Amino acid sequence: MPSESVPFKNLVDISFFAEKIDLALSTISYGDKPAELYDPIRYIMQLGGKRLRPLVTLLAGYLFQDDVQKCIKPACGVEIFHNFTLLHDDIMDKAPLRRGKPTVHEKWNHNIAILSGDVMMVRAYEQFLEVEPAKLQKVLKLFSSCAAAVCEGQQLDMNFETRDYITIDDYLHMITLKTAVLLGFSLELGAILNGATEHDAKLLKNFGINVGIAFQLRDDLLDVYGDQTKFGKQLGGDILADKKTFLLLTALTQADDKQKEILSRFRNNTAAAAEEKVREVTQVYTELDIRAQTEAKINNYFEEAIQCLNAVSAPENRQALLRNLALQLMEREN
Amino acid sequence: MPSESVPFKNLVDISFFAEKIDLALSTISYGDKPAELYDPIRYIMQLGGKRLRPLVTLLAGYLFQDDVQKCIKPACGVEIFHNFTLLHDDIMDKAPLRRGKPTVHEKWNHNIAILSGDVMMVRAYEQFLEVEPAKLQKVLKLFSSCAAAVCEGQQLDMNFETRDYITIDDYLHMITLKTAVLLGFSLELGAILNGATEHDAKLLKNFGINVGIAFQLRDDLLDVYGDQTKFGKQLGGDILADKKTFLLLTALTQADDKQKEILSRFRNNTAAAAEEKVREVTQVYTELDIRAQTEAKINNYFEEAIQCLNAVSAPENRQALLRNLALQLMEREN
Repeated sequence: MPSESVPFKNLVDISFFAEKIDLALSTISYGDKPAELYDPIRYIMQLGGKRLRPLVTLLAGYLFQDDVQKCIKPACGVEIFHNFTLLHDDIMDKAPLRRGKPTVHEKWNHNIAILSGDVMMVRAYEQFLEVEPAKLQKVLKLFSSCAAAVCEGQQLDMNFETRDYITIDDYLHMITLKTAVLLGFSLELGAILNGATEHDAKLLKNFGINVGIAFQLRDDLLDVYGDQTKFGKQLGGDILADKKTFLLLTALTQADDKQKEILSRFRNNTAAAAEEKVREVTQVYTELDIRAQTEAKINNYFEEAIQCLNAVSAPENRQALLRNLALQLMEREN
Repeated sequence: MPSESVPFKNLVDISFFAEKIDLALSTISYGDKPAELYDPIRYIMQLGGKRLRPLVTLLAGYLFQDDVQKCIKPACGVEIFHNFTLLHDDIMDKAPLRRGKPTVHEKWNHNIAILSGDVMMVRAYEQFLEVEPAKLQKVLKLFSSCAAAVCEGQQLDMNFETRDYITIDDYLHMITLKTAVLLGFSLELGAILNGATEHDAKLLKNFGINVGIAFQLRDDLLDVYGDQTKFGKQLGGDILADKKTFLLLTALTQADDKQKEILSRFRNNTAAAAEEKVREVTQVYTELDIRAQTEAKINNYFEEAIQCLNAVSAPENRQALLRNLALQLMEREN
């Protein structure tokens, strides 16, 4: 396939790469028959999303070569894998909606959701198979380790629902596996494919892991302190669902007896009025300055990420694309 | 890793290869934490089974080289994948037992069964990653196509449960995907890894597909005409479950009005006495000589398989190992 260099080098921006991803994803053929198996794959892949992971694969590749052609199919593999995890997670979480639309197990049924997800994992692996033979084993080992880690993270997340005592470190470990390692792999992938040194590839992986953790903490924060006019979901959803977020776990370690009493009174209390529960728990967070503490933690991870990125040997104007993207993620309101 | 040649060449038998498989499977490390994710994998892998698929991979490899060392890990990958499909199929079929023991979703729960299965697919792929770089892409493309086909077969099988009209060709297509292609791939895999020509590899694949179809038809037959003292399950299970087997579909195409009335009277009739249903349906089969027709069909597939095997350029005494194994499968009573 003839490859295409990046035109107007000084003008290139993220949308240039995003369009490449959208085009590539739109041309993937998942299969036809039986329709019950393949329609759900097209459905979930067309629900959209930020395409963040394949985008950073291309941006990471662009740090080392103008031409990102050979990164595109593997980047799609990461996106298919990510959507596979969403599909199976939605079954496990009994989620009715995904991006405002019925989830696959709601629109079709549980069995179809399980089996379509299984094929998605196969299709994800297939996207990697055009990687040059000398790098194929390495890339697939990293992808497989990452894929298993994501499953470990999901299992830990489920375990935490019924476990009484979870430390902040437990939580950070869980979100690292469930969310951050895939972002780290996405970056490492682009770096490896486009000839980065081992050192630079690992720096980019760490950039991704740190951004990923900060991203999840930002999620936790927005659920409580987001702007309802901009936030896509109802504020306080995590509080109502008794989710053990960074905010709650931090509050539990610092609460005095009165605050502990409030937190424990509302915990797993389905009889409590929703508005009151959100208000009272948020009040405890506010008394303990949990918002500032969470923002500080997010900043720590973000700073660590930026240091990794800055240490990569690549043109500054290309690093800026990834830096700006990370900044956008940190400042997002939804 | 130092490789080990086959000793006593004239005395080598199937158990020599079976022991290699058992040893290799027993040393695979699936992972440790969280235990909820990895214990089910060890559990289902230790439930046993014939290890038929990895065994034929080694036997196919042995046709072309004394040393089957490089076939062993990929053969384990096939076995892990096969057990992954059993794990997820058992969820979909709501099966309480697998090899006489509680299924994973019964012993743990549905979510754990889904997620453990997902990791099993990852671990299956990982077993292939030591394949020499020049062959890795080819092997993984074939494996991935096969894996998707197995999922297609499972989806068709589920679709057939609620579909009124299924032709015998529909049924043969379904069992080819659900059962036979994985056996075909197992053989092709060993052939490719040990340097067979493209032609010989395809012959072995076709040998496997034909044996696989014959194997499934034998299953259908044993359910009705097996010897209860040797058959592991209650006879007539397929009849009671209204499974559209080769026997039923053949009977439906040949039944006269009276026989059609009997078959349709008992179909989806949960109120019917079990013993009466099995007896009456079996009586129709017997009147139509379905047993002999099924046996003839099995023989056709078996003969086709043997012709493929005989056409392979390999030592006769090594072909005999695969021929004898296929013969055992055809003559099995359970």
